[in-house]
Amino acid sequence: MQAIVGVIMGSKSDWPTMEHTCSILTELQIPFEAKVVSAHRTPDEMFRYAETAEEKGIEVIIAGAGGAAHLPGMVAAKTLVPVIGVPIHSASLNGMDSLLSIVQMPGGVPVATVSIGKAGAINAGLLAAKMIAVRDQSLRSRLSERRIQIKEQVLKDSDFK
Amino acid sequence: MQAIVGVIMGSKSDWPTMEHTCSILTELQIPFEAKVVSAHRTPDEMFRYAETAEEKGIEVIIAGAGGAAHLPGMVAAKTLVPVIGVPIHSASLNGMDSLLSIVQMPGGVPVATVSIGKAGAINAGLLAAKMIAVRDQSLRSRLSERRIQIKEQVLKDSDFK
Amino acid sequence: MQAIVGVIMGSKSDWPTMEHTCSILTELQIPFEAKVVSAHRTPDEMFRYAETAEEKGIEVIIAGAGGAAHLPGMVAAKTLVPVIGVPIHSASLNGMDSLLSIVQMPGGVPVATVSIGKAGAINAGLLAAKMIAVRDQSLRSRLSERRIQIKEQVLKDSDFK
Amino acid sequence: MQAIVGVIMGSKSDWPTMEHTCSILTELQIPFEAKVVSAHRTPDEMFRYAETAEEKGIEVIIAGAGGAAHLPGMVAAKTLVPVIGVPIHSASLNGMDSLLSIVQMPGGVPVATVSIGKAGAINAGLLAAKMIAVRDQSLRSRLSERRIQIKEQVLKDSDFK
Amino acid sequence: MQAIVGVIMGSKSDWPTMEHTCSILTELQIPFEAKVVSAHRTPDEMFRYAETAEEKGIEVIIAGAGGAAHLPGMVAAKTLVPVIGVPIHSASLNGMDSLLSIVQMPGGVPVATVSIGKAGAINAGLLAAKMIAVRDQSLRSRLSERRIQIKEQVLKDSDFK
Amino acid sequence: MQAIVGVIMGSKSDWPTMEHTCSILTELQIPFEAKVVSAHRTPDEMFRYAETAEEKGIEVIIAGAGGAAHLPGMVAAKTLVPVIGVPIHSASLNGMDSLLSIVQMPGGVPVATVSIGKAGAINAGLLAAKMIAVRDQSLRSRLSERRIQIKEQVLKDSDFK
Amino acid sequence: MQAIVGVIMGSKSDWPTMEHTCSILTELQIPFEAKVVSAHRTPDEMFRYAETAEEKGIEVIIAGAGGAAHLPGMVAAKTLVPVIGVPIHSASLNGMDSLLSIVQMPGGVPVATVSIGKAGAINAGLLAAKMIAVRDQSLRSRLSERRIQIKEQVLKDSDFK
Amino acid sequence: MQAIVGVIMGSKSDWPTMEHTCSILTELQIPFEAKVVSAHRTPDEMFRYAETAEEKGIEVIIAGAGGAAHLPGMVAAKTLVPVIGVPIHSASLNGMDSLLSIVQMPGGVPVATVSIGKAGAINAGLLAAKMIAVRDQSLRSRLSERRIQIKEQVLKDSDFK
Repeated sequence: MQAIVGVIMGSKSDWPTMEHTCSILTELQIPFEAKVVSAHRTPDEMFRYAETAEEKGIEVIIAGAGGAAHLPGMVAAKTLVPVIGVPIHSASLNGMDSLLSIVQMPGGVPVATVSIGKAGAINAGLLAAKMIAVRDQSLRSRLSERRIQIKEQVLKDSDFK
Repeated sequence: MQAIVGVIMGSKSDWPTMEHTCSILTELQIPFEAKVVSAHRTPDEMFRYAETAEEKGIEVIIAGAGGAAHLPGMVAAKTLVPVIGVPIHSASLNGMDSLLSIVQMPGGVPVATVSIGKAGAINAGLLAAKMIAVRDQSLRSRLSERRIQIKEQVLKDSDFK
Repeated sequence: MQAIVGVIMGSKSDWPTMEHTCSILTELQIPFEAKVVSAHRTPDEMFRYAETAEEKGIEVIIAGAGGAAHLPGMVAAKTLVPVIGVPIHSASLNGMDSLLSIVQMPGGVPVATVSIGKAGAINAGLLAAKMIAVRDQSLRSRLSERRIQIKEQVLKDSDFK
Repeated sequence: MQAIVGVIMGSKSDWPTMEHTCSILTELQIPFEAKVVSAHRTPDEMFRYAETAEEKGIEVIIAGAGGAAHLPGMVAAKTLVPVIGVPIHSASLNGMDSLLSIVQMPGGVPVATVSIGKAGAINAGLLAAKMIAVRDQSLRSRLSERRIQIKEQVLKDSDFK
Repeated sequence: MQAIVGVIMGSKSDWPTMEHTCSILTELQIPFEAKVVSAHRTPDEMFRYAETAEEKGIEVIIAGAGGAAHLPGMVAAKTLVPVIGVPIHSASLNGMDSLLSIVQMPGGVPVATVSIGKAGAINAGLLAAKMIAVRDQSLRSRLSERRIQIKEQVLKDSDFK
Repeated sequence: MQAIVGVIMGSKSDWPTMEHTCSILTELQIPFEAKVVSAHRTPDEMFRYAETAEEKGIEVIIAGAGGAAHLPGMVAAKTLVPVIGVPIHSASLNGMDSLLSIVQMPGGVPVATVSIGKAGAINAGLLAAKMIAVRDQSLRSRLSERRIQIKEQVLKDSDFK
Repeated sequence: MQAIVGVIMGSKSDWPTMEHTCSILTELQIPFEAKVVSAHRTPDEMFRYAETAEEKGIEVIIAGAGGAAHLPGMVAAKTLVPVIGVPIHSASLNGMDSLLSIVQMPGGVPVATVSIGKAGAINAGLLAAKMIAVRDQSLRSRLSERRIQIKEQVLKDSDFK
Repeated sequence: MQAIVGVIMGSKSDWPTMEHTCSILTELQIPFEAKVVSAHRTPDEMFRYAETAEEKGIEVIIAGAGGAAHLPGMVAAKTLVPVIGVPIHSASLNGMDSLLSIVQMPGGVPVATVSIGKAGAINAGLLAAKMIAVRDQSLRSRLSERRIQIKEQVLKDSDFK
């Protein structure tokens, strides 16, 4: 099935984080593709990916990157498709470098930044789903149901004493 | 005309930042409404806003807030409409508190966070436009043209020596 | 016995921290209840909790939350009962995000913030006790005795050489 | 009238911040006293203040301090009266040093910390009021009315467009 | 004269910082060119600049950028010419975002990062000069003389009392 | 033998750090005493310690503390003996809270702050030794010899290739 | 009169901070000298200064520096005289870079670090005085009297209401 | 073979990081030497190293150091050879102290700073190679080939789904 979400990451080592994005997309039955596209090691392929995403039918790009994380912002500079950035937890600075490199984009080129690490990867999938659900009633229902289930789980486990 | 973007902010004092969002939306001919909705001072109105946004036809909510900025995340918890959060530059900690309060959402409730202050307000408007343009070819053209004009402006001014 | 302190937390995963609050309350014989109430996953229940706390006889609410920690501030916006916020140590940013999201409240809605993690959870229990002890002489005596015992323990172990 | 709130600050230069605390207390008709008590320049007077506060009828102490801010924590170590700490905005580190010096108390000696600077000073007054209102219905009404007025002000000014 | 240093910056607003680089290069008689090349607004031109720099005779590229500063790292990914990155002082986070976005490059694509703002811009010019002076004895002499003059100036002004 | 250095720490849990101070003092044959003196749990004993240190013959006080570390500054406020502060590595914020709470003293009450953790504990011992050596030629010789030995050790191990 | 304190600073631009050190030394009648000695621009003179300080009669060195502040640590590596480091408030990072560059010395070479900026400069003078006063009863009396005067000033101005 | 790159580090404990620099240099067939040269423990040897590097044929110096990392900047102050600084990951502050101590050099003495830890050590080797390759076509080819291989590796592993 034709992917409508493109999940890309700067390095294979980002997969343990970014697989949480893919799990959410799978759970919500949103067709996606997942690739390593490195801003620094495969810059031309990154530009090509960004340039061709729209015509391939991609409606949202989710890009995970760590450290001096340039992938989300550079892809966003090359396409009109909305780009979600996931700051990967980095070895030295706990992901603060990843976060600032992704979120502090200059006026003109937005990146929709989510939280650092696993929570952000989950939220990237959900944010893409929310964007698509605006025009997909069936996905909207699945999202709504998911939210109710989570709420009920919290309520069931709520009392400690 | 029926608003499809809801621009809300925690306080009137956020207007000098958030008016940049409104300028972008006006420029791109996207109908929007702008309101003060305070998470802490009008919490019930905030919930009502979030609960009714979708049925009113709002497709994206942009929420600006500063300090312990709870508005974007709380609205996101109450609606399936995608929420963009703008961290307002704060008096004490340069907006770092605003940024972390908005971006570090737990897995389950995403907020699409943009940069701190004016650049973020501009980008919030553009991100909303990118989201809507996926299904609005005319807006897509306006966005594309805007990007070309900006590029040409940069190129024209490029040489110093 | 009717709870006079309400201990709430954003997630079951906060329990290893928040149980230290409960131990202190138990030790000081202060009746309390402990619940998971999530700002983001059960927002309506959170508002209901805050709205009904006072009439149920709750005199202090202690709320633990991590990351973009909105629980203490949102509860504080919905009740006149004093709210103590405990920043949970977060995975990525060592609890700095939790601390700033809780403590940097705008003027108008105070949250009594304590230290990050276990020390803060202990102190939340003691702070609630100090508040209640102003009008409960018997609790005041227990607090006073506890302080003396701790001091004597320090003095007994004081000399290394 | 006998003060029931003691407002102390480490230096006269903290007054432009701490007067916001006093304005709130005045507005809410809570009798208070305001003094400079320096942890570092008048340590014995600080201890005496803390030791005698309770017998003088003080029910809450509010202590503002900046930099290596030791006043709130040291007073809290010497009295069973609850202590609220206000981190003063510092010249070099924007109040981050003040905040961490006040909030990161070890388990055993809580300080109820509020936000940095003016917002924190306002909130310190309101937090004290919330503590006292638990047993003062008239103050509770004034607090409740204040909250309603603020909400109505926000609602009145809410629409931009 | 053929430029051997390429000075590029992400925006015209970086010029007040980057002109200090150009002053040093002029002073040391190193031929250079200065251009605005924006990673986000003119990404294709940026790639073209990087790809053609070497064949044009450029031996060092100096790139200044602020916020989510992607210019130095992206240029470095596209050329074998050494790249020096100058973090521009940013409005919100004092240049900490610029610094981390430039310096925290992943293994494989180095950027020679200098200090934030004016001092960094001066040092970028001097670092380029040091690189070139390895094979240019005349430049080496000018650098050496400059250093002696600065030292003598310090010594002349050294005594206060 | 009469102690001339007083080593104090806020908690027994600081001993694994502070024992490095004691090892240095032992190695350099400087008589010292080591005690737990807690600013928050034994405030009166802390003041007594500070008040009597000078008459007991203490010439330097070394105080280790973590988190909202008030011990060094409060002792410094109560004695004319120079006080060295050792920031203990804290659980949440890596000792940044300890460092700022100790070093950012207001003008009037200095604390000689050393690095966070073990390196700081070693340096506290050496700094005390340097202070005393100004009037103790024999200690000066031991310090000088120690420095030479360390240098020779570095030189012996210097070559890798 | 022979200087017993050496006040050095990395640049003439540090004088507005370091003159506060000199004022304190003058007030306390401690003979001193003040010089610009730059770690980076006059490294050999810095080493010479450090090597000859002791034989000239210098008993304490106070070194102020900003940014990547190497002066205090390098001087400390070259002399057995105790060195006090004053972190100068820096343009970009509010003196945090100066503080960390001075205080985080490796085990073996201590620098007695004081607070950032003016407060630190004052405290450097007072810390030097405390060190010298251990063997100078007259200076000890002046220090003691100064402390009493400051306390009395605080007490006189203490009451606001 | 005569070394043209000098790899120095402040301590033997920096070797696990700095060996990555040496691996890159070995792989690229660049002759180098590796030594421990401590700014603080062997300051005279450090100066001698810096003073003699150029005449020995060293064309680039790579200096790794942690904490208050003075080695790169002090060496840079004593030679006209370009100096690359590698911030070693530090125990307490995750290398943020190392980074700021190295990168925030005052105008006049540049240090080419790379990322914290292992990635930085790799990049230091590559940056030195890029500098040398400007006049060494054979090295340029090896660098170019290395880049192509890495790109191909990324492309081969790129698809996840």
